[in-house]
Amino acid sequence: MEWKNFDLLDSYKKLAGLEKTDLKAVMAGESGAERVKKYQVPMPAGMKYSFAAKQVNDETLDALQGLADEAQLTEKYAALYNGEVINTGEKRLVLHQLTRGQLGDDVIADGVNKREFYTTQQSRAAEFAGKVHAGEIVNEAGEKFTTAVQIGIGGSDLGPRALYISLENWAKVNGTLKMEAKFISNVDPDDASAVLANIDVAHSLFVLVSKSGTTLETLTNESFVKNALKEAGLDPAKHMVAVTSETSPLAGNPDYLDSFYMDDYIGGRYSSTSAVGGVILSLAFGPEVFARILDGAAASDKLAKNANIFENPAMMDALIGVYERNFLGMGTTAVLPYSQALSRFPAHLQQLDMESNGKRVNRFGEPISYKSGPVIFGEPGTNGQHSFYQLLHQGTDIIPLQFVGFKNSQMGNDVDIQGSTSQQKLCANVAAQIMAFACGKDDENQNKYFEGGRPSSIIAGEQLTPEALGALLAHFENKVMFQGFVWNLNSFDQEGVQLGKVLAKKVLAKDTDGALTEYSKMLGIF
Amino acid sequence: MEWKNFDLLDSYKKLAGLEKTDLKAVMAGESGAERVKKYQVPMPAGMKYSFAAKQVNDETLDALQGLADEAQLTEKYAALYNGEVINTGEKRLVLHQLTRGQLGDDVIADGVNKREFYTTQQSRAAEFAGKVHAGEIVNEAGEKFTTAVQIGIGGSDLGPRALYISLENWAKVNGTLKMEAKFISNVDPDDASAVLANIDVAHSLFVLVSKSGTTLETLTNESFVKNALKEAGLDPAKHMVAVTSETSPLAGNPDYLDSFYMDDYIGGRYSSTSAVGGVILSLAFGPEVFARILDGAAASDKLAKNANIFENPAMMDALIGVYERNFLGMGTTAVLPYSQALSRFPAHLQQLDMESNGKRVNRFGEPISYKSGPVIFGEPGTNGQHSFYQLLHQGTDIIPLQFVGFKNSQMGNDVDIQGSTSQQKLCANVAAQIMAFACGKDDENQNKYFEGGRPSSIIAGEQLTPEALGALLAHFENKVMFQGFVWNLNSFDQEGVQLGKVLAKKVLAKDTDGALTEYSKMLGIF
Repeated sequence: MEWKNFDLLDSYKKLAGLEKTDLKAVMAGESGAERVKKYQVPMPAGMKYSFAAKQVNDETLDALQGLADEAQLTEKYAALYNGEVINTGEKRLVLHQLTRGQLGDDVIADGVNKREFYTTQQSRAAEFAGKVHAGEIVNEAGEKFTTAVQIGIGGSDLGPRALYISLENWAKVNGTLKMEAKFISNVDPDDASAVLANIDVAHSLFVLVSKSGTTLETLTNESFVKNALKEAGLDPAKHMVAVTSETSPLAGNPDYLDSFYMDDYIGGRYSSTSAVGGVILSLAFGPEVFARILDGAAASDKLAKNANIFENPAMMDALIGVYERNFLGMGTTAVLPYSQALSRFPAHLQQLDMESNGKRVNRFGEPISYKSGPVIFGEPGTNGQHSFYQLLHQGTDIIPLQFVGFKNSQMGNDVDIQGSTSQQKLCANVAAQIMAFACGKDDENQNKYFEGGRPSSIIAGEQLTPEALGALLAHFENKVMFQGFVWNLNSFDQEGVQLGKVLAKKVLAKDTDGALTEYSKMLGIF
Repeated sequence: MEWKNFDLLDSYKKLAGLEKTDLKAVMAGESGAERVKKYQVPMPAGMKYSFAAKQVNDETLDALQGLADEAQLTEKYAALYNGEVINTGEKRLVLHQLTRGQLGDDVIADGVNKREFYTTQQSRAAEFAGKVHAGEIVNEAGEKFTTAVQIGIGGSDLGPRALYISLENWAKVNGTLKMEAKFISNVDPDDASAVLANIDVAHSLFVLVSKSGTTLETLTNESFVKNALKEAGLDPAKHMVAVTSETSPLAGNPDYLDSFYMDDYIGGRYSSTSAVGGVILSLAFGPEVFARILDGAAASDKLAKNANIFENPAMMDALIGVYERNFLGMGTTAVLPYSQALSRFPAHLQQLDMESNGKRVNRFGEPISYKSGPVIFGEPGTNGQHSFYQLLHQGTDIIPLQFVGFKNSQMGNDVDIQGSTSQQKLCANVAAQIMAFACGKDDENQNKYFEGGRPSSIIAGEQLTPEALGALLAHFENKVMFQGFVWNLNSFDQEGVQLGKVLAKKVLAKDTDGALTEYSKMLGIF
């Protein structure tokens, strides 16, 4: 197996030399219909990845398959799940897929079978959640806990929060919403204050999540919450559990009701299927629903093993994204779920993608001379249509679009107006947008002219169930992983976040000079 | 007054020829401290716009002042607020500033003094809100309304929602939270279902907002809500008011308790200070708080009249943004408020900016040959630091950053840990980030190397009060307006949203062919 910079591959030159597809032309008429039928890859939970409206043709796809083979994407994935040190910067294994299935060899690290380690933590979380729901673990007054509050930031917040919001209403109508979940993340004191003002602390169970047990924001918010509990005459140790690594100061600490473990082989942004998401989601929805999320993710992980890009949706998605980034010159990607439940999913993907592949050095620490990860942003449709879509349709840059849509709503409550339901209107809008972006519209009035040629894909499914959500989550994790392999990056460290932390400590220690002193004065710190 | 394309101005050539500032060098040591002291513009409510960490120097600023003069920015602003037809596409006046003050001549349109029209609507909204709060307007059971629910999308949603979230906790601690506000926007039936499941409909007052009275999503959601009210045995006409234009089917309709008016001279994304924001915010916070938002906005509008860019923060901000976009080649801007209360403010700015200036034709409908509005995205700090900042620090593209921060929290509840409060930690982080982005850090290990040279500005204030919020809102509206003037765009129409609507109607009428038929099948519409 060879780790080479992207621009040293034969496929790079080949892709650079290909004629560009005229998207507007190929998506018109019968040719467009044929493309929709042909250019799709099945995904788990009845979903499919459809890329007919991407700026590719058979020749591009051949070259992208060639790139996948030459860059040894499936071999590198196998190396990862079989336990090689893929996170070269921090010299760590990368094992998040192992939280939801065994894809290859047993992985033994630190003297333990890691699959067993993760499933043990899942069982412990499930058992704990079961006891909370059954009223066996209760507050000091012997009353049931009704609310679970996650205290964490970054990967300990965005993924679990996005998943919770995605299934909250589904769980309500399916009778599996066991506890309401809330999240505290920001060091801004107004964040914790506002959450605490809106919950009944006496019936709240706090889940403190920090791998190292040293995250500034999380420890600060822990103190905030402990103060609030004490002020209410409550014992914090009876209201709080920890999710942390076995070597952290939070592990097995009597200040917590219980501790659940993660390890260094799962980065924060990949940790939703570990105990980081497992504890809060098992508390909120019950362990059975969390297990269904894992099943969906495992199914996506399995598909990602396929060498044929027409059988590997994450790899297809990844390669088309690379083509857009490096050969079509598109620097931003919009994630546009036509599902209100996925309202915070783009924020999770923003971290997942930008923190993994927003890098300027390769996995050996050498500067690269091609573009790496794009900027990711997005909001749910149809809301975005009434907001930033103007620029997407008629702006001076072309922004590739990643749509997601489902045939059925989650809550099943709908209204028929002028011959169609809201859900049909929602789906009609996403179908219409794909075509509007691809084909545009001629008009003599240039202000009403749409040039088209704006590429999009859609992941289309039946309903946003726990399995579909897990499959979506893992699809994007694997997409980002494959792109990192192509760009020859280490997608699993994040050195770019360190400098700010160091300088913030200097400010708080009043150890500054020059402009930093002036800014500190301006912000009232000095 | 002359409307010329940007690249035809002498200033364009001048700016293109300027030597680029070495940001890393000028922000180091004493030079950096001097820049922070010198490169700032006062804003209302004790705020300042600080641009020391932007990639500009005195020579650039001279040239930008020259551009402001040559492009006649203050004259064009005066033409706008004095009632010229600035929205050339739709042949309309542009009068949103008039909702908060009289900047120039009386503007008479449709036979009425428009300032009087807007203030009359404000008084009517204030009077109505007062009666609701006093229990003079009540539900059928004679009980007080406790919750106000806005039904609207795009500009009828994002701005008012962002403003509500920005002040919700401030209002709680200051005893002015009169009613809780909720928002329904998406045509996704799960959006309305979820909101309705979480409120007490019998004590809820719905504010239906649609200028035309024909917005698909809003009318659909109105039906949704009316069904829910009827199912609860309630009379919808006793639970709903309309905010609309005087000529819409919703105006003066007996189906509503009352109607409040806007007009065609205020675009949706500029309508937060009209009745679109006024009714819901007066209900939620009381009319006095809404009036304070207007005062802050009016103060920003007044500053925007200054021809000297050192006395006009919106113009300075606009011009630096243009310089980054057209001469430094930066295509995206991140908005990063270090304030949890501003969590949805970036989503509002995303619409404001991208819908206004995401255009490829000038105000005469002729294609332009330079870049116009950038992509805007953002999340509050410190959360973003643990998410996408990796790419901002070490990615292959440079993304200009727009920070916002306040010395004091809104709720005043804080905790001291290791010698500093949460608020101090929050402010220390934003100060540190500015310097980390500007100056970077040398390291032999390229993976830990930060190249710096990444420009940012900060709007720094005392506290996020209603005045500060109003001033921020108008600052960005005026920034976008000035940029539109420089780019010679019509920032006040949005033809780019039309095609999708037309095609969605075709889908719902089953009047499709080719790929659109296939997508409709894939999404279960046919």
